[in-house]
Amino acid sequence: MARFIQDRTASKGKAPGSLIHIGDRKMERPVIHLIEYDQETLVEKELDSIEEAILVKDTDKVSWINIFGIHDPEMMQRIGEIFVLHPLFMEDLMNTDQRPGYQDGETYDGFIMKMLKFDPDESRIIAEQFTLILGEHYVLTLQEQTGDVFNPVRERIRTTGRIRLRDSDYLAYALLDTVVDNYIVLIETLGRQVEALEERLFMDQDRSLIEEIYKLKTELSFLRQSVRPVRELMIHLMKSDSSFFQEKNIHFLEDLNDLVVQATDAIELYSGMISDHLNIYSTNLNNRINEVMKVLTIFASIFIPLTFLAGIYGMNFEHIPELGFKYSYPIFWIVVILIGLGLLRYFRRKDWL
Amino acid sequence: MARFIQDRTASKGKAPGSLIHIGDRKMERPVIHLIEYDQETLVEKELDSIEEAILVKDTDKVSWINIFGIHDPEMMQRIGEIFVLHPLFMEDLMNTDQRPGYQDGETYDGFIMKMLKFDPDESRIIAEQFTLILGEHYVLTLQEQTGDVFNPVRERIRTTGRIRLRDSDYLAYALLDTVVDNYIVLIETLGRQVEALEERLFMDQDRSLIEEIYKLKTELSFLRQSVRPVRELMIHLMKSDSSFFQEKNIHFLEDLNDLVVQATDAIELYSGMISDHLNIYSTNLNNRINEVMKVLTIFASIFIPLTFLAGIYGMNFEHIPELGFKYSYPIFWIVVILIGLGLLRYFRRKDWL
Amino acid sequence: MARFIQDRTASKGKAPGSLIHIGDRKMERPVIHLIEYDQETLVEKELDSIEEAILVKDTDKVSWINIFGIHDPEMMQRIGEIFVLHPLFMEDLMNTDQRPGYQDGETYDGFIMKMLKFDPDESRIIAEQFTLILGEHYVLTLQEQTGDVFNPVRERIRTTGRIRLRDSDYLAYALLDTVVDNYIVLIETLGRQVEALEERLFMDQDRSLIEEIYKLKTELSFLRQSVRPVRELMIHLMKSDSSFFQEKNIHFLEDLNDLVVQATDAIELYSGMISDHLNIYSTNLNNRINEVMKVLTIFASIFIPLTFLAGIYGMNFEHIPELGFKYSYPIFWIVVILIGLGLLRYFRRKDWL
Amino acid sequence: MARFIQDRTASKGKAPGSLIHIGDRKMERPVIHLIEYDQETLVEKELDSIEEAILVKDTDKVSWINIFGIHDPEMMQRIGEIFVLHPLFMEDLMNTDQRPGYQDGETYDGFIMKMLKFDPDESRIIAEQFTLILGEHYVLTLQEQTGDVFNPVRERIRTTGRIRLRDSDYLAYALLDTVVDNYIVLIETLGRQVEALEERLFMDQDRSLIEEIYKLKTELSFLRQSVRPVRELMIHLMKSDSSFFQEKNIHFLEDLNDLVVQATDAIELYSGMISDHLNIYSTNLNNRINEVMKVLTIFASIFIPLTFLAGIYGMNFEHIPELGFKYSYPIFWIVVILIGLGLLRYFRRKDWL
Amino acid sequence: MARFIQDRTASKGKAPGSLIHIGDRKMERPVIHLIEYDQETLVEKELDSIEEAILVKDTDKVSWINIFGIHDPEMMQRIGEIFVLHPLFMEDLMNTDQRPGYQDGETYDGFIMKMLKFDPDESRIIAEQFTLILGEHYVLTLQEQTGDVFNPVRERIRTTGRIRLRDSDYLAYALLDTVVDNYIVLIETLGRQVEALEERLFMDQDRSLIEEIYKLKTELSFLRQSVRPVRELMIHLMKSDSSFFQEKNIHFLEDLNDLVVQATDAIELYSGMISDHLNIYSTNLNNRINEVMKVLTIFASIFIPLTFLAGIYGMNFEHIPELGFKYSYPIFWIVVILIGLGLLRYFRRKDWL
Repeated sequence: MARFIQDRTASKGKAPGSLIHIGDRKMERPVIHLIEYDQETLVEKELDSIEEAILVKDTDKVSWINIFGIHDPEMMQRIGEIFVLHPLFMEDLMNTDQRPGYQDGETYDGFIMKMLKFDPDESRIIAEQFTLILGEHYVLTLQEQTGDVFNPVRERIRTTGRIRLRDSDYLAYALLDTVVDNYIVLIETLGRQVEALEERLFMDQDRSLIEEIYKLKTELSFLRQSVRPVRELMIHLMKSDSSFFQEKNIHFLEDLNDLVVQATDAIELYSGMISDHLNIYSTNLNNRINEVMKVLTIFASIFIPLTFLAGIYGMNFEHIPELGFKYSYPIFWIVVILIGLGLLRYFRRKDWL
Repeated sequence: MARFIQDRTASKGKAPGSLIHIGDRKMERPVIHLIEYDQETLVEKELDSIEEAILVKDTDKVSWINIFGIHDPEMMQRIGEIFVLHPLFMEDLMNTDQRPGYQDGETYDGFIMKMLKFDPDESRIIAEQFTLILGEHYVLTLQEQTGDVFNPVRERIRTTGRIRLRDSDYLAYALLDTVVDNYIVLIETLGRQVEALEERLFMDQDRSLIEEIYKLKTELSFLRQSVRPVRELMIHLMKSDSSFFQEKNIHFLEDLNDLVVQATDAIELYSGMISDHLNIYSTNLNNRINEVMKVLTIFASIFIPLTFLAGIYGMNFEHIPELGFKYSYPIFWIVVILIGLGLLRYFRRKDWL
Repeated sequence: MARFIQDRTASKGKAPGSLIHIGDRKMERPVIHLIEYDQETLVEKELDSIEEAILVKDTDKVSWINIFGIHDPEMMQRIGEIFVLHPLFMEDLMNTDQRPGYQDGETYDGFIMKMLKFDPDESRIIAEQFTLILGEHYVLTLQEQTGDVFNPVRERIRTTGRIRLRDSDYLAYALLDTVVDNYIVLIETLGRQVEALEERLFMDQDRSLIEEIYKLKTELSFLRQSVRPVRELMIHLMKSDSSFFQEKNIHFLEDLNDLVVQATDAIELYSGMISDHLNIYSTNLNNRINEVMKVLTIFASIFIPLTFLAGIYGMNFEHIPELGFKYSYPIFWIVVILIGLGLLRYFRRKDWL
Repeated sequence: MARFIQDRTASKGKAPGSLIHIGDRKMERPVIHLIEYDQETLVEKELDSIEEAILVKDTDKVSWINIFGIHDPEMMQRIGEIFVLHPLFMEDLMNTDQRPGYQDGETYDGFIMKMLKFDPDESRIIAEQFTLILGEHYVLTLQEQTGDVFNPVRERIRTTGRIRLRDSDYLAYALLDTVVDNYIVLIETLGRQVEALEERLFMDQDRSLIEEIYKLKTELSFLRQSVRPVRELMIHLMKSDSSFFQEKNIHFLEDLNDLVVQATDAIELYSGMISDHLNIYSTNLNNRINEVMKVLTIFASIFIPLTFLAGIYGMNFEHIPELGFKYSYPIFWIVVILIGLGLLRYFRRKDWL
Repeated sequence: MARFIQDRTASKGKAPGSLIHIGDRKMERPVIHLIEYDQETLVEKELDSIEEAILVKDTDKVSWINIFGIHDPEMMQRIGEIFVLHPLFMEDLMNTDQRPGYQDGETYDGFIMKMLKFDPDESRIIAEQFTLILGEHYVLTLQEQTGDVFNPVRERIRTTGRIRLRDSDYLAYALLDTVVDNYIVLIETLGRQVEALEERLFMDQDRSLIEEIYKLKTELSFLRQSVRPVRELMIHLMKSDSSFFQEKNIHFLEDLNDLVVQATDAIELYSGMISDHLNIYSTNLNNRINEVMKVLTIFASIFIPLTFLAGIYGMNFEHIPELGFKYSYPIFWIVVILIGLGLLRYFRRKDWL
């Protein structure tokens, strides 16, 4: 299965807007979690069925319906009906391959984003589709499986933080902010690895370095693919007039946008650095080839001529006058040593030693 | 014949708007297929001549006239007259080399796109020109030959799907969506090949790898050339006021646009990866050259000096005192082994072993 | 003389708008050719002097005055006066180095473009400046020398084609279309060469390949320099309100624009491919270096140690016990062969064989 | 700790707008420095507590409150209250990782920038967060620690310069100008190093060169990351209507903007040069490998065949007729010398000598 | 001193708008040259002091005040006062490091550009700051030293050319045109060098080639840095409403703009070519390494095994049966020659010969 885009054979021949789950099924049956609060009260419970959500939708309290598991077409169908979501948006959010995007619906703002996690065992980033629907007094979030990064937000709700004084748009902001904050953490993790490579770059001769460089490069590409569309999403959102974000909270969106810009900047920077690493590695490799070549050349260039000389006097011609001279042997050694020293000096002059 | 652009000598000296087929003729004689439907009725038949299309054009039912084979100038001429198509648009759709584009005609919306197919034998993408003309209550499609990806759409029409409730613009959307969906499938096919290469990249020494990398790169370029103009086409279409797409179906166009953006993004991503592959391959190759050099250098640097030494005592000088000593030979071996070990240690210190 | 930009020392110290011919003088004396036509009549003749053009300028018939040779300042001066051309435009059209451009004059539309020709002997593109001035009922074209690609257009005029029914703007379009069509032919020629190289890329070891790659790269750059400004020119023209192109012919301009976009796209594509070729060539070269190194290393690593061994028993020490043993020689061969096989196996394991 | 982006675990689970210091704590306790002036009077003192700032805020004189140390959340909280700063802006300025930016507040203009310093020991740029808040008649600046580049500005205030005649917006301009001027100084420092490398590029064989090239490349990236957002900041500021910069001082802002553009241009230029250096280094390295290879090949190719020849006549076959000839030995030498000279000539023809 | 950006320590601590000369002082004392003309009269003289310029400023004649030497702050101060120039513009024009730009002043148009000269001894471009101030009926130009490219313009003024009929804006245009024309000449000079390199690229093995390539690359970067901002300047100027260029002369500005675009295009083209050169050089170098390797491998692979064989029969084992055979020696030679031929054939098949 291609990592960056998935086969959609499953959806072939179905009408657009048909609810087909594209992606791996990550849990058995969906879990629906509800937090309902206003300044004074707080209710937190698990819903047995999505039908219960109809009730909470119309109170004045803020409701956060958090659904884990999006592979059940029937439940998804009901969700679409209850919250009056556009069929195409429904189709998108069930396609885990979907590019992050923003839909300016009539009764809601819809966000599709990726929740990213670094799996240290595989040294790769794992993406999970995250959908947030912001309506009047409610936020509906959908994730592929249980386990997320939102516990701090839940804690803030429970501890009567500022979040309790505000409406659902602030909750949505808090959740989006958490997702994007998480990108920064991830970039920092990869960034630290990139910078760690830097130190090995000039010491190591390790062939595995190149593999690590390549892996990091791929992960950064993966990260970029998830984060860059969020920037467009933010611009789209901030230009939208009919958004459910209140005017007075626009500062929060700007701040969120800044965070996303910072994230994309850092990704570009680290991508640039890792490309440099590859270049440097390659140049260092050539440096090493050069070193090896020099050693070979020095050895061979000195001893091959000398061996020839020794070969000369190993010949069996009957008439080689030098053979009979008394001092031939010591003279031979002197000549050999002089030639050797001469060549060494030649190589030293060439700066090879 | 250049693959990416074709000689148009055939059209030289002809007035612009002359109907000349540029490209390979892919079938004997054109086939005209008609599906006519409304909510209750469905007629499906093959037309003997394009003249019959005049009748279906003016009913209130939705008609899909599907023509296979665009090389017959006379028939094309008649089609142009019947559907009041602009001569230049006619010229374009007969030129199989034509860049994908959108024409905002007076009585129709005209789309020229490519239908792409991966030929696994040749490992290359094959493109077929696909033209769609959306008019009031009718859709006219033209293809180079029979065989296409639209059977699921035909099935949906036959099985009284949502498509039967709607007008011709929805049919057009369904067809365009199918074409673009097919791009995604193709990208996924190439993507899987790109990712498969990745695994061989660090194991293999295979020279064929470079050829595969190059082939994939070329196919991705070919794909990009077909898909990128579709993005412009979509923007053009969505900005057009006089389009035959009804306002209420604009969400479908947006969704289609998202799909096209996703396709181009994925193409760029895989193109980036394949460029990285080439770099990595090249660096790995240098690593191997380095390895080979080290082996050579170690062997040569150890044995060339020793051979010289053996050569010395193979000389036939009469006065070589060492020759007569009793323990010369074992001492010689000891010296040889010490020199060998010394050099091995030297290479080990240099981290070559 | 630099090919891509020319010294303009000649024009130094002259007032802007002075008529100085910059470029090579390609013919002896200018030739003026006239075609005058309407639906019924057609006159074709050669003019002795530009003065005769005054008469034809004011008829209702369409006149095409085609001038070959632009190096004569006096004649050019008169042309400028007769057709009320802006002095700076006159200066530009006489500078064969001039970048393609469009001038929205008061009584005319002025186009400066390049007519390109592939010289197969030199394997290079030759550019000729082509100027087209579209006024009311007349088209004035200026070329550096006789010989052009417009014969098909002339033929269409002679054979009472559609062109005879229309005004001068259609003639201008037909001529511009011919020029751009010619770019496509040229791109196809280069494209075929690029694709032909592709096949040799993985077979050949030819050093000349690199030179051909470089040549093609340079020609593509040259082509791009001529074609890209035409794209700006088209945009400029289509936005111009006061153009002499009639509103009803706007479709032709759009079609022309499409052709130019297709041309620039194809140029970029082939430029990309040729860059890939260079990369692949370079990697293949390293592959060959690697191959050569392996052969050397295998030979040297096997025979150098064996030679050392033979050298040992060639020594003349008096006390070498092995020398006297009866089976020393066959044992020596066995050892030699075992060492040889061992090393071969070692290299085979390293996948060098 | 990744240099280019920092972990924000500290802020996790806190509500947005919570004041958490992200970064290293660079000094013990904050220092508050005040300069209050108008045309005639000047007061300069250190404040014990930020509360004293309330008084100076509302005079007609210009007050510059300069705070060193931003890690104390309580003090920062008070500052936010006194100067009515937006909580998110407060959060940003305490995050030393914050991207440079401009906030168009209701009662102030807020700027976050980096003050950069080159640490010659580490050969790296050190960044310090610098925040400037421009309100009516006051400027508030916040830095991470004491020590800055503003002494010349302080001197100009003390010496009754033009600055004393103007309002707080001019003071803000003077400070921002100083910060940006400092970027230019830094770029000049790095630029000089880049240009110094250039001279060693063609002389040196130094492996350390590559490390220096890489270091400079990284520092230039770091610099770019700090300076480029300032350009956006300037554009944002100049487009802002509600800015506290007076209309008549707009020329100063344009000048400042020019300086920033110059800075980014120079950074791009030097980045380009350093990339070229890497290329050149790499090509030079290959040149050296080529040199080494030639020396080896010449030595080996001359002496290996000759050694073989000597080996021939060292063989102990009983019947080698040449061995007994009288002039065999001198003839052998002549042959050897002729072969040697022949090979030398061959290599000279190949231009290897 | 960094070439591309200069230390501005000198200006540190000075108020913005302070007149400090940044750059090398190129002449002793400033020279002021005046040309005053209308259709009938022409006065040309040298002024002793800038005060005299006050008189000429207010006549109806066109005055061109040309100042050589801008390092004297006092004189510059007076100039600023007389011509009512903005202090920041004054500061910019005295900073020889200033980026080319356009200031739309109230009583003048201000242009800062570079006059470029190719120094053939150093093979580098030398830049001189050139400032042009266009006011009502006057043009004020400032240069760093005497000697310029404007003599042709002066000549045209003296010889009662068209320039005498027109106002100061035409003079300004003529001067700017001359400066830009000079860029083209310079690009042509560098371009010819680039193209000359091309011819040596495939013949030469010269190591100096790489140095020349690098030098040309740097000069082209330098050129780009001077010319590119002029393009922005032109756009800024043409959009400016309050410019002192008269509407009727707008054609001249467009022409000037075309020239600048042509210049930047050519710079990009040659930069691209020089990058290609570097690539080709590098590939050719690898080709040569490959050649060298092949020679070495062929020699070594043939003679090393043969030497081993000769070594065998040089051994002193008592029992080597071959030694006593009569035809051993000729058989040995036959074997040697067969092995040699076999290896040669092997290498020929590998296409190494």
